Amino acid sequence: MTIATEGGLLGAGITGFRTPPALTAAALDDYAASYGASVLELDQALAAAPGPADLIDLTHGDTRAFVPPAVAAADFAAAVAENTEAYTAYRGSASLRSAVAPRLARLLGRPVDGASQVIVTPGTQGGLFTALSALISPGDTVALPDPEYFMSERIIAYLGGKALRLPLRQDSKGLLSITRHGLAAAASADLLVLSHPNNPTGGVYTAETVQAIADLVTAGEMLAVVDQLYCRLIFAGTKYLHLSSLPGMAERTVTLLGPSKTESMSGYRVGVAVGPAPIVDAMERVLSLTSLRTGGYSQQVLRHWMADDDTWLAERTAAHEAIRDDLVARLRAIRGVSVAPPAGSSYVFPDASGTAAGSNDHDLALALKDAGVLVSPGYQFGPSGRGRFRINFSQDAGRLAVALDRMETVLRG
Amino acid sequence: MTIATEGGLLGAGITGFRTPPALTAAALDDYAASYGASVLELDQALAAAPGPADLIDLTHGDTRAFVPPAVAAADFAAAVAENTEAYTAYRGSASLRSAVAPRLARLLGRPVDGASQVIVTPGTQGGLFTALSALISPGDTVALPDPEYFMSERIIAYLGGKALRLPLRQDSKGLLSITRHGLAAAASADLLVLSHPNNPTGGVYTAETVQAIADLVTAGEMLAVVDQLYCRLIFAGTKYLHLSSLPGMAERTVTLLGPSKTESMSGYRVGVAVGPAPIVDAMERVLSLTSLRTGGYSQQVLRHWMADDDTWLAERTAAHEAIRDDLVARLRAIRGVSVAPPAGSSYVFPDASGTAAGSNDHDLALALKDAGVLVSPGYQFGPSGRGRFRINFSQDAGRLAVALDRMETVLRG
Repeated sequence: MTIATEGGLLGAGITGFRTPPALTAAALDDYAASYGASVLELDQALAAAPGPADLIDLTHGDTRAFVPPAVAAADFAAAVAENTEAYTAYRGSASLRSAVAPRLARLLGRPVDGASQVIVTPGTQGGLFTALSALISPGDTVALPDPEYFMSERIIAYLGGKALRLPLRQDSKGLLSITRHGLAAAASADLLVLSHPNNPTGGVYTAETVQAIADLVTAGEMLAVVDQLYCRLIFAGTKYLHLSSLPGMAERTVTLLGPSKTESMSGYRVGVAVGPAPIVDAMERVLSLTSLRTGGYSQQVLRHWMADDDTWLAERTAAHEAIRDDLVARLRAIRGVSVAPPAGSSYVFPDASGTAAGSNDHDLALALKDAGVLVSPGYQFGPSGRGRFRINFSQDAGRLAVALDRMETVLRG
Repeated sequence: MTIATEGGLLGAGITGFRTPPALTAAALDDYAASYGASVLELDQALAAAPGPADLIDLTHGDTRAFVPPAVAAADFAAAVAENTEAYTAYRGSASLRSAVAPRLARLLGRPVDGASQVIVTPGTQGGLFTALSALISPGDTVALPDPEYFMSERIIAYLGGKALRLPLRQDSKGLLSITRHGLAAAASADLLVLSHPNNPTGGVYTAETVQAIADLVTAGEMLAVVDQLYCRLIFAGTKYLHLSSLPGMAERTVTLLGPSKTESMSGYRVGVAVGPAPIVDAMERVLSLTSLRTGGYSQQVLRHWMADDDTWLAERTAAHEAIRDDLVARLRAIRGVSVAPPAGSSYVFPDASGTAAGSNDHDLALALKDAGVLVSPGYQFGPSGRGRFRINFSQDAGRLAVALDRMETVLRG
């Protein structure tokens, strides 16, 4: 594998330009020990690799297969017509935050004050960057699960933090746990960052692990950032526990939410974060620097978010559960592939290391792209991603079936 | 004036939370020598100060007085209905960048390659943060005019850069100059950042100064970031020269553009940056961390941006020129107030230091707010802002007249 060096890619043609050290750190050079290249270089090689014209992209959900609620477009159009909130407070429209707060409180099972504890963010990723920028000082130790959402370690490195990985175990029902012994390694960390349900596995943490995390955070006077983007898409038989609902945790937790996934409102680029007032103040200061505010009209698509949508949510969840069941069965039928069923979200993270094609997940992703399927290779999510890949299964059934045929061909070798 | 200290504001109620040093730097503590408080604390005091229920906000344009082109809402609605670009490349939709590139080339007077030299940003402020983050390493010296857009010095400080201010001179036609002697102070800088037209004065740089800036940048192998958000709103008799059109400058300049001001499309939160390919690559990496991408639907409001709108633009410019003339005449009629007429943009930056109320621009802004007018105090734009304040005059004529009555009462003392 030949990958252009960063200097070659970025330094070409102009003098006087040096990549800032923060951006260099975000390339995650240490993955070169296992893969021969940084995460950035691996990603660039995958992006540059050829694929067929009818490439099926499974790295994100298909917002035409599962469309946003119709009220979102109507709310946006109303905001444009009213045109009274093109400019809002940096943290978002006051009336909107006030309207959404009771729904956030109901979801999270704890009081939420819209004025002081809620900030509207440019997507949930924007919330993640804003929260981590408000919390991480250079040299801080930041604990995060392995595997974990692909941008978390990059942002931690960008901010000068040191990532400490906590290995996860996922059981046959899709439930995730970290042992108290495993968590003890994070006792001296400054911050804990995790997605729940976990991205990329779709795992939901056991109540015991959520409690152990809360105990760790409160005992160590740490803080926690929990990305709950998928916390409403939980499959039958699974109990979901909100971290900030545990005693002492509302004061120590930033919870990231948004309508980009379950509600397919990705194109509006809006999210919401709930946290202690002093941290929300600091997040607002970060947001004012990065982009002033979330788009004024886009904020208004939250007007009906999580309002009286129980029936809609039940249908959407059932549809994804049915896809999950078929998908897991088909993947398990491929010799050398193992997979835990996700307990929530629309992600699955199969392990193909038992196949001839699957020992190196970067090479596997290149082979799958060549065969017409784009997946997210395991290295993106952490060292435990070796030999694995992520699929977002919020897809059109016919296209997903074609993608699976292509994947089978590659994996059966 | 009593202002809560940062520790008091941010540390209340939780332990284990420390403001990261980058965010502390962005508070601009050194302004305390002149004002007794950091820029952040001054801003917070102004935000917390009481004002009447019918406060007239002149800190930004009124998007109901000057509405966005109707095609913007139609383009957004079409993007929602098509729903094919909720997820785009981080740098923005490839087809959109390709469509906009010839218009950018015509505007800037130089070739523009949509694939490699264009990135869509979350507003023009998002473009500014993204560009500076891609270019500034800690310890870098960054030259910027005094006065300059209020967020520039904060972002430079956030990134660990050292700001070097270059004093401006504005003549009676609104034209701005920096002497070659003044520019020589920036000869060892790593980067030059400026808005053109200048925010807050509305000044347009003379051709001689633009050429001197280009000479400085090319001779020193420096780079330049020029915020041209208002470069299409230029008043009669003024010649505007695009920095990146000068020999050797396309390779050294990031130009920030967008429809948020002249086109009033602020609520969509979209901008465009044009720069050398290696810098656009680095900007894309920053953007992927901060928010992944600009909202997929919002990107599509650029479909008809700057396309066949000469008549529309001429009308909008004439309307703002008429407001400018009235406004400047009224301000000049107040004893102790002096003001240069803006040559472009919708900003004016009067000097009230000759009035009893105006020696301290922070106190003046508090008094104006109490009287029912919100302005942007001079300190926000740099040390030369002492005794000055910024008005955005893209306003409803009747409301602006009422605001002027209120301002007169305060300034006549």
